[in-house]
Amino acid sequence: MVKRLKVATIGGGSSYTPELVEGFIKRYDEFPISELWLVDIEAGKEKLEIVGELAKRMVQKAGLSIEIHLTIDRRAALKHADFVTTQFRVGLLEARAKDERIPLKYGVLGQETNGAGGLFKGLRTIPVILEICRDMEELCPQAWLINFTNPAGMVTEAVLRYTNIKKVVGLCNVPIGMEMGIAKLLDVDPSRVRIDFAGLNHMVYGLDVYVDGESVKDQVIEFLTDPNNSSFVKNIQGIGWEPEFIKALNVLPCPYHMYYYKTKEMVGKEMESSKKEGTRAEVVQKLEKELFELYKDENLDIKPPQLEKRGGAYYSDAAVRLITSIYNDKGDIQPVNTMNRGAIASIPYESAVEVSCIITKEGPKPIVVGDLPVPVRGLVQQIKSFERVAAEAAVTGNYNTALLALTINPLTPSDQIAKEIVDEMLEAHHEYLPQFFKEAKV
Amino acid sequence: MVKRLKVATIGGGSSYTPELVEGFIKRYDEFPISELWLVDIEAGKEKLEIVGELAKRMVQKAGLSIEIHLTIDRRAALKHADFVTTQFRVGLLEARAKDERIPLKYGVLGQETNGAGGLFKGLRTIPVILEICRDMEELCPQAWLINFTNPAGMVTEAVLRYTNIKKVVGLCNVPIGMEMGIAKLLDVDPSRVRIDFAGLNHMVYGLDVYVDGESVKDQVIEFLTDPNNSSFVKNIQGIGWEPEFIKALNVLPCPYHMYYYKTKEMVGKEMESSKKEGTRAEVVQKLEKELFELYKDENLDIKPPQLEKRGGAYYSDAAVRLITSIYNDKGDIQPVNTMNRGAIASIPYESAVEVSCIITKEGPKPIVVGDLPVPVRGLVQQIKSFERVAAEAAVTGNYNTALLALTINPLTPSDQIAKEIVDEMLEAHHEYLPQFFKEAKV
Amino acid sequence: MVKRLKVATIGGGSSYTPELVEGFIKRYDEFPISELWLVDIEAGKEKLEIVGELAKRMVQKAGLSIEIHLTIDRRAALKHADFVTTQFRVGLLEARAKDERIPLKYGVLGQETNGAGGLFKGLRTIPVILEICRDMEELCPQAWLINFTNPAGMVTEAVLRYTNIKKVVGLCNVPIGMEMGIAKLLDVDPSRVRIDFAGLNHMVYGLDVYVDGESVKDQVIEFLTDPNNSSFVKNIQGIGWEPEFIKALNVLPCPYHMYYYKTKEMVGKEMESSKKEGTRAEVVQKLEKELFELYKDENLDIKPPQLEKRGGAYYSDAAVRLITSIYNDKGDIQPVNTMNRGAIASIPYESAVEVSCIITKEGPKPIVVGDLPVPVRGLVQQIKSFERVAAEAAVTGNYNTALLALTINPLTPSDQIAKEIVDEMLEAHHEYLPQFFKEAKV
Amino acid sequence: MVKRLKVATIGGGSSYTPELVEGFIKRYDEFPISELWLVDIEAGKEKLEIVGELAKRMVQKAGLSIEIHLTIDRRAALKHADFVTTQFRVGLLEARAKDERIPLKYGVLGQETNGAGGLFKGLRTIPVILEICRDMEELCPQAWLINFTNPAGMVTEAVLRYTNIKKVVGLCNVPIGMEMGIAKLLDVDPSRVRIDFAGLNHMVYGLDVYVDGESVKDQVIEFLTDPNNSSFVKNIQGIGWEPEFIKALNVLPCPYHMYYYKTKEMVGKEMESSKKEGTRAEVVQKLEKELFELYKDENLDIKPPQLEKRGGAYYSDAAVRLITSIYNDKGDIQPVNTMNRGAIASIPYESAVEVSCIITKEGPKPIVVGDLPVPVRGLVQQIKSFERVAAEAAVTGNYNTALLALTINPLTPSDQIAKEIVDEMLEAHHEYLPQFFKEAKV
Ligand SMILES: [Mn+2]
Ligand SMILES: [Mn+2]
Ligand SMILES: [Mn+2]
Ligand SMILES: [Mn+2]
Repeated sequence: MVKRLKVATIGGGSSYTPELVEGFIKRYDEFPISELWLVDIEAGKEKLEIVGELAKRMVQKAGLSIEIHLTIDRRAALKHADFVTTQFRVGLLEARAKDERIPLKYGVLGQETNGAGGLFKGLRTIPVILEICRDMEELCPQAWLINFTNPAGMVTEAVLRYTNIKKVVGLCNVPIGMEMGIAKLLDVDPSRVRIDFAGLNHMVYGLDVYVDGESVKDQVIEFLTDPNNSSFVKNIQGIGWEPEFIKALNVLPCPYHMYYYKTKEMVGKEMESSKKEGTRAEVVQKLEKELFELYKDENLDIKPPQLEKRGGAYYSDAAVRLITSIYNDKGDIQPVNTMNRGAIASIPYESAVEVSCIITKEGPKPIVVGDLPVPVRGLVQQIKSFERVAAEAAVTGNYNTALLALTINPLTPSDQIAKEIVDEMLEAHHEYLPQFFKEAKV
Repeated sequence: MVKRLKVATIGGGSSYTPELVEGFIKRYDEFPISELWLVDIEAGKEKLEIVGELAKRMVQKAGLSIEIHLTIDRRAALKHADFVTTQFRVGLLEARAKDERIPLKYGVLGQETNGAGGLFKGLRTIPVILEICRDMEELCPQAWLINFTNPAGMVTEAVLRYTNIKKVVGLCNVPIGMEMGIAKLLDVDPSRVRIDFAGLNHMVYGLDVYVDGESVKDQVIEFLTDPNNSSFVKNIQGIGWEPEFIKALNVLPCPYHMYYYKTKEMVGKEMESSKKEGTRAEVVQKLEKELFELYKDENLDIKPPQLEKRGGAYYSDAAVRLITSIYNDKGDIQPVNTMNRGAIASIPYESAVEVSCIITKEGPKPIVVGDLPVPVRGLVQQIKSFERVAAEAAVTGNYNTALLALTINPLTPSDQIAKEIVDEMLEAHHEYLPQFFKEAKV
Repeated sequence: MVKRLKVATIGGGSSYTPELVEGFIKRYDEFPISELWLVDIEAGKEKLEIVGELAKRMVQKAGLSIEIHLTIDRRAALKHADFVTTQFRVGLLEARAKDERIPLKYGVLGQETNGAGGLFKGLRTIPVILEICRDMEELCPQAWLINFTNPAGMVTEAVLRYTNIKKVVGLCNVPIGMEMGIAKLLDVDPSRVRIDFAGLNHMVYGLDVYVDGESVKDQVIEFLTDPNNSSFVKNIQGIGWEPEFIKALNVLPCPYHMYYYKTKEMVGKEMESSKKEGTRAEVVQKLEKELFELYKDENLDIKPPQLEKRGGAYYSDAAVRLITSIYNDKGDIQPVNTMNRGAIASIPYESAVEVSCIITKEGPKPIVVGDLPVPVRGLVQQIKSFERVAAEAAVTGNYNTALLALTINPLTPSDQIAKEIVDEMLEAHHEYLPQFFKEAKV
Repeated sequence: MVKRLKVATIGGGSSYTPELVEGFIKRYDEFPISELWLVDIEAGKEKLEIVGELAKRMVQKAGLSIEIHLTIDRRAALKHADFVTTQFRVGLLEARAKDERIPLKYGVLGQETNGAGGLFKGLRTIPVILEICRDMEELCPQAWLINFTNPAGMVTEAVLRYTNIKKVVGLCNVPIGMEMGIAKLLDVDPSRVRIDFAGLNHMVYGLDVYVDGESVKDQVIEFLTDPNNSSFVKNIQGIGWEPEFIKALNVLPCPYHMYYYKTKEMVGKEMESSKKEGTRAEVVQKLEKELFELYKDENLDIKPPQLEKRGGAYYSDAAVRLITSIYNDKGDIQPVNTMNRGAIASIPYESAVEVSCIITKEGPKPIVVGDLPVPVRGLVQQIKSFERVAAEAAVTGNYNTALLALTINPLTPSDQIAKEIVDEMLEAHHEYLPQFFKEAKV
């Protein structure tokens, strides 16, 4: 008898789910999934129903016998799962909107995964992830945890340091997006493009880039210095790199590096859009509403093309690609977040890094990077320090530690402003940060 | 016959020299110096005469037979020297004033050793230091180079990486100032205070602090959180740390850390004083003028007490203390800038660090530090990256590399502002940066 | 116009060459080689002719237009080569026989690549390799050097440390032999077996072993503890591991580990066979004679099956497999000798290690290993120390350094015996060790 | 009220105790000990009485008010102790004699702290040390554990890895003996000699040696190559180093290095003496008997000069010197066994190393060593691997692990001989190795 393949998706009511389902359908030959359990919380039940019914129609249309289970009983979903994927959002887009708006009041970047917003998303998310891990230790200790809940780097770090789950991978669409962007730019098939990735989640560099194994880095860097083309992803545009800076940097930055190397301009841009079209969360809220209207349509039985505007393209596809490679011991190269083990010199051995790996049945194994180039090494270290202190704050609920995390973040202009932001955001997210309100502040 | 002890001081016309001379007089029993050669450049001849004559009077008053030589022939001074000290300032205080004023125009810190000012001081200074080292390789290869020309960390890094002089020590008065400050605070004799220093020059932390070997760190951190007492050195006052931040940091920052953890407030303060009393260089220019008036007085035969206002207290004393310990193989503990050799984990083996060392005839040997605390590790790494790229720019005269150095500095808000500052400062310091004007910009 | 692909094989008159030629023929579709230059020295001209004519017949039979060039002009062969392979033997099998016989007189292992024999093979070989590298720097700086001249680890170390050739790979058939052996043992297709290799050449461990990505290590270790099955390669048989030792070791040793973990038994066995059938070199000399008789047969136009008895099975095939993967940027996993770059913790960054790599157009990139298991770490370090001191001795021709190398080798029972062996072997190999006889011993 | 200073000495009935007492008397001004508790086991009661009474007479003669307590109640002795010293011997000299004799039967070194003997001494000793540590955690958690029970390196490693006692120092008289030997050789006062020590216990090298801070290494190495002078300690004599080997090694070996670099000669010498005067333990047994006869003399009130023949000169003195420096935060340099923390590159961060340290109230802090010279690095690593596997075997009582430890020891010629020795020694020491006989062998 063939083993049944069970996947549990925490945050199954997400608008992303149709892409995930499409991914499983497309790769069914290689990964014959038997059951997909979409889990959500009580408050997300309605969306779970909508997206779950669409998933069923999609499977039916594909003529496959994948069971779709919709549930708010997380433990039932985890039981004997082979793969667990996480795509939930504690506090939903409302919380994200606060992460974006509050720091701006203090003249500081408000962003989902960087700076103060990233810190507070981490503080809300990590305790939930650790609960899931504890359930997994009990209910499916052999399963792989494929996390794409942000901040994915900090979350992976927390899982590695604070749980017994070693089979965890953090996933992001940024690297795949960079490869896609370069393929498009050079007008070659994406399968011919390979980037040597190294760094941290949303702080990843392309140390070299190849087409058919030949380096095209100089060509790509030349292109990056053209102000009309300076970004690979949709949501950060119109701001160009200083050509001489990028040439001297001599590696490919990821789109999020703009927050660090162009802090002032990015804060300005954000402030502007927060006044006009709203922050990203607010824009996405509208998009999501429209998407769910579409999803309700009983005639819809494919992933609707409108989903691509949502952002996060390739995210779910990357997840299924990863799962398929693990399942089949493929030995192909994919950039993921995993334990460093010496791959990147001077980053702690046990810390999470985002790095090109070969994917085996035993999971990702980093291809050795060695020393990061001197100019990028310091910033990567600084974000790793931030992630570790932030994870500690998330676990302990210690006020001072949270303040420390924010103050050492390179986007924070002073300890005093850090304190003001921490104070306001702790109140704003009170409901989702119980660990900070167990007792009086220390 | 006893070996004659020869010391050469490059930048001998400095207003600091009387303290240095006083130091040699005080420690003559332990370090029986025969000849002190004060070297300066043509343009500094007048000051060299003034300060040199004072030095002679001081020696005479002390009844010692130390020869004082005044010269602008650096090679004559270096020949067979046992110790070479450097305290010169390329471009004098005029250049420093530009380092301070220009960045402020762009809303960015202008400071002698940090950020854009530190970068340009490095760009001007390093080529001269490397020339001195090449002379030393030829004329006094066995001599020790005791550098207290700023930015001392970057300079030491450059000497270690770009010369064959291995007997180099970078010196700063900040650590000794911190120990003095704590002694005063706790009302104990300074000899009873010891701090475990680790980090980089002007980026050094006190990992622990002891009185008679017992840790008093908690007590000192408590004190640091009192806004009235938050600083150990004169020139940064009235701005207090956030108590919860310092408690969570749990190590002693040095005064310069204010630029990084309170960037906004420090820039504001600087802007204000630049409008009122002038920048620090401008204030010091006046002080120096007064000092040299004093020095001219033929009745003056001691270090005048007014010198202490100049800042840089203990600097020259620290130099003589170090020289004495090397000469006598004392084995005492002093914080200096020297090659890391693994003392601080995750900082490159060959890089300069500022760390507590035992001082032997073979020079400083770091006491092992191990892992820096997670929260401070990233910033230290980032400054080390900055120092290394800056040193490379100083040596190559490459425009892009200089821009890269400034952009990755944590005090710089964007690559675009970095470019504007680099462009203006290159012009302003044109005369002292020949390496950047050999040919057209790349 | 298509680029012509040129391969130069130093030591082309070797009896192995027909396998190499067969390899190129088999993989012609993937690697369309245009010219194969077989190079040898004056003394090897006759064998070069014999084997070269066979090569031509093989190519003709295959119906391919590969040009076979036979030459003793190494520089002509190297000019514009794309790949250079080395399979020469300084001093031929006569020298190897001395490496084997002399140490035995002192009760010490005499073996081609380990202990005193390995040291002296290194001392003879490294200067020649370095000459080739200097020619390559001039004549084909873009070429890959694929070395399978033994001692391949020491040779790769020497190339990395003493030349500017960075595109060097050391190759051995031991890892592939272990995978083949396990495939046979478990009766599965070799393509389904993968071992995580880590260590040094002839000192490599299988940290884990998989079939279709599932670990079968426990099963294989169980098998290894069966005294009848304890070896994977032909030439070390009949001596079994202590089962409890292997279970506690918990990784797969390679066949050469017997010299270290069963030193006494192996020396005994060697002594016995040196008295009966002769040492390995002496046996091989006879085999070679027979092979060349076969090769002369003008009707022979394939690799004769008798070659397999020669030992070194898969060697040439491994070389062509590697070349093909580099040429096609295949991204497959192969165990080779390459620069560590942090892949194996606590082995120097710049040292050669033997490790599973992905093979790209840029060459092998190690898959990160991290910490070696504690029990094997020390021995690997000790052999690396030996290799480095030996390489230094080969380059400098310093007598004391050669003695140091042999004394620190774990197979050497004392400095005194080391000295006796070094003295006798220096004389015995006088002709091939000119660097030791430039002047009087130091 | 002044704090009372309490020292507990486990194994207080040892013949060494009079030296320890003399040490405390000599340094009473600096370390005003109030109570010395000599602890022993039931079986050692008689010797404890004899040596304890002598101790009392010594104190009385010195006119000091140090209380001497004699007890077999270890917990009473540990309660509120400030320093705990350990000098016990599980199984007494009878067990040591077996450690020495049994391996010789197999042609292998039998020695107290190296090879099979060292392993079994570790297996007997470590469980007792760990018990003491558990008592200390409860009864005197602030106390320092000064261990001079052998094998001191392995014991310190075990305490660091398997207990919560972080205030532990392992002590050996070898380094001090080397300094004394060199002082005598050069006819200078020992206080003027300093050696940079680095390595492991009984595997320590002098990387450089100074008189008044000036290196005299070349001179000392020259001396070492004189066969009449090749050893610094009494018990290994008459066997000289090969001069060319030592010159190439270029660091000072310690006497125990003879076992590794002259294995064959040392085994031969041991075999000979085991037949003539008996093994070292057997010789010492007689010496001890004579010593205790002396100790009984009620007129004896000083350390008798005959004790020096016992070996272990300076041992107790080194202990009191260390205690005094810790107590007074002296900051002097002493070679001890402590946690590496990066002092020696490529040795694990948490492992015990023997290294020159400055001694503070917080204990020893290693002076950074950096990279060990290439030729010695491998052997040090190998012994560290051995120590770690041996400590694990001691803690777990796992037969296979013990066999693994012995097989990877560089003095062991094969896994088969290792097994024979382990089997015989487990039986011989059955009584003292309960952890191996809890259940049937695995
Ligand atoms: Mn992402
Ligand atoms: Mn300073
Ligand atoms: Mn091989
Ligand atoms: Mn000892």
